[in-house]
Amino acid sequence: MRDPAKHSASPTVQVLTLKTSRRTELVNITAEVARRVTESGVTSGICYLYVPHTTAGVTINEGDDPDVARDIEAALDRMVPRDAGHKHYEGNSNSHIKSSLVGVSQSVLIEGGRLLLGRWQAIFFCEFDGPRKREVHMKIQPDANV
Amino acid sequence: MRDPAKHSASPTVQVLTLKTSRRTELVNITAEVARRVTESGVTSGICYLYVPHTTAGVTINEGDDPDVARDIEAALDRMVPRDAGHKHYEGNSNSHIKSSLVGVSQSVLIEGGRLLLGRWQAIFFCEFDGPRKREVHMKIQPDANV
Amino acid sequence: MRDPAKHSASPTVQVLTLKTSRRTELVNITAEVARRVTESGVTSGICYLYVPHTTAGVTINEGDDPDVARDIEAALDRMVPRDAGHKHYEGNSNSHIKSSLVGVSQSVLIEGGRLLLGRWQAIFFCEFDGPRKREVHMKIQPDANV
Repeated sequence: MRDPAKHSASPTVQVLTLKTSRRTELVNITAEVARRVTESGVTSGICYLYVPHTTAGVTINEGDDPDVARDIEAALDRMVPRDAGHKHYEGNSNSHIKSSLVGVSQSVLIEGGRLLLGRWQAIFFCEFDGPRKREVHMKIQPDANV
Repeated sequence: MRDPAKHSASPTVQVLTLKTSRRTELVNITAEVARRVTESGVTSGICYLYVPHTTAGVTINEGDDPDVARDIEAALDRMVPRDAGHKHYEGNSNSHIKSSLVGVSQSVLIEGGRLLLGRWQAIFFCEFDGPRKREVHMKIQPDANV
Repeated sequence: MRDPAKHSASPTVQVLTLKTSRRTELVNITAEVARRVTESGVTSGICYLYVPHTTAGVTINEGDDPDVARDIEAALDRMVPRDAGHKHYEGNSNSHIKSSLVGVSQSVLIEGGRLLLGRWQAIFFCEFDGPRKREVHMKIQPDANV
């Protein structure tokens, strides 16, 4: 469902850009994603998020206490240490491994014109080889009228 | 594709509720998800599952031998121990970390009016900080007629 | 958006088959997935990938230097050792656990008639209990015209 006065074409991909400031860093991007969902005029559908990088990811977790994001960063560093005899010549294999553990895409439901997140949930871009300039692709897909 | 006699509106979000009984517990929810797919009348499409919690997740794995779910619970407990010097004041950081490892969403294909799971696959709600009352959001999206 | 001369029906599920040659092996399937997206004639939409197995998965990571895939295989073997006192009688619990860590599905955006992957990204089938014959389900969903 979409407001036809606002949109006549199919949904296209939007690009959200950000700068990270540490090697391992979860960045809360919920406000920007929510703003674009509102702007889209889509009342019911799916918001696809996709990270086009191989040393980064996207996760959904608690945004209320920022210590949770710090604990996730530390836990991943412990689970996948930087110097574990990797072959890849760039020396950032642990960044790639974290990316495959967390994943590069998320699908969030849209209902009533907003992201249907849980009360404590926030969307985090996950930097695993920063600091860098990064992108997140977004596609806001309205439900088909059936 | 949808049976027009059964449905005239766009797909909306359904809420599946459950109670967990242990701190770490994989709960097989396949039968209830499958029942709702059948009820929807959607013959071809996508079933989106989304967990609106930050200390839980959803995974797809073997449902035939219940020991597999128990082994996954134990492996996650080993990989992300409870007392690893976390900062978060609630003392459940390892629950949040497991949630980001397993993920809070799944997209399952629907074909011939049923979930297209592999022979041994089942859908599991993953409790990482129970026991609690929990929810799973479901959206059953029919393919657009093109 | 779809070329109506090429397609008149709803998208259906395609099956991609492959043979793996080692117990733990990431197999780059990007070329085959991309070929089927081109063949579909879909210019804008979503490509769903789904692995119907419980000891395998699908991930997106660097395809340029094959050492990255080898490092991911080795890291998962370290994180989830084969002999860790699992209960499941088949002795392949670590394969199931890796499947839940990496996940069995991916949603990739389609734009301009092609997969919108990042410059270094490739799609990998993840074998965790090979060698075997395996399948990947694909559904190429065009955007609904709104």
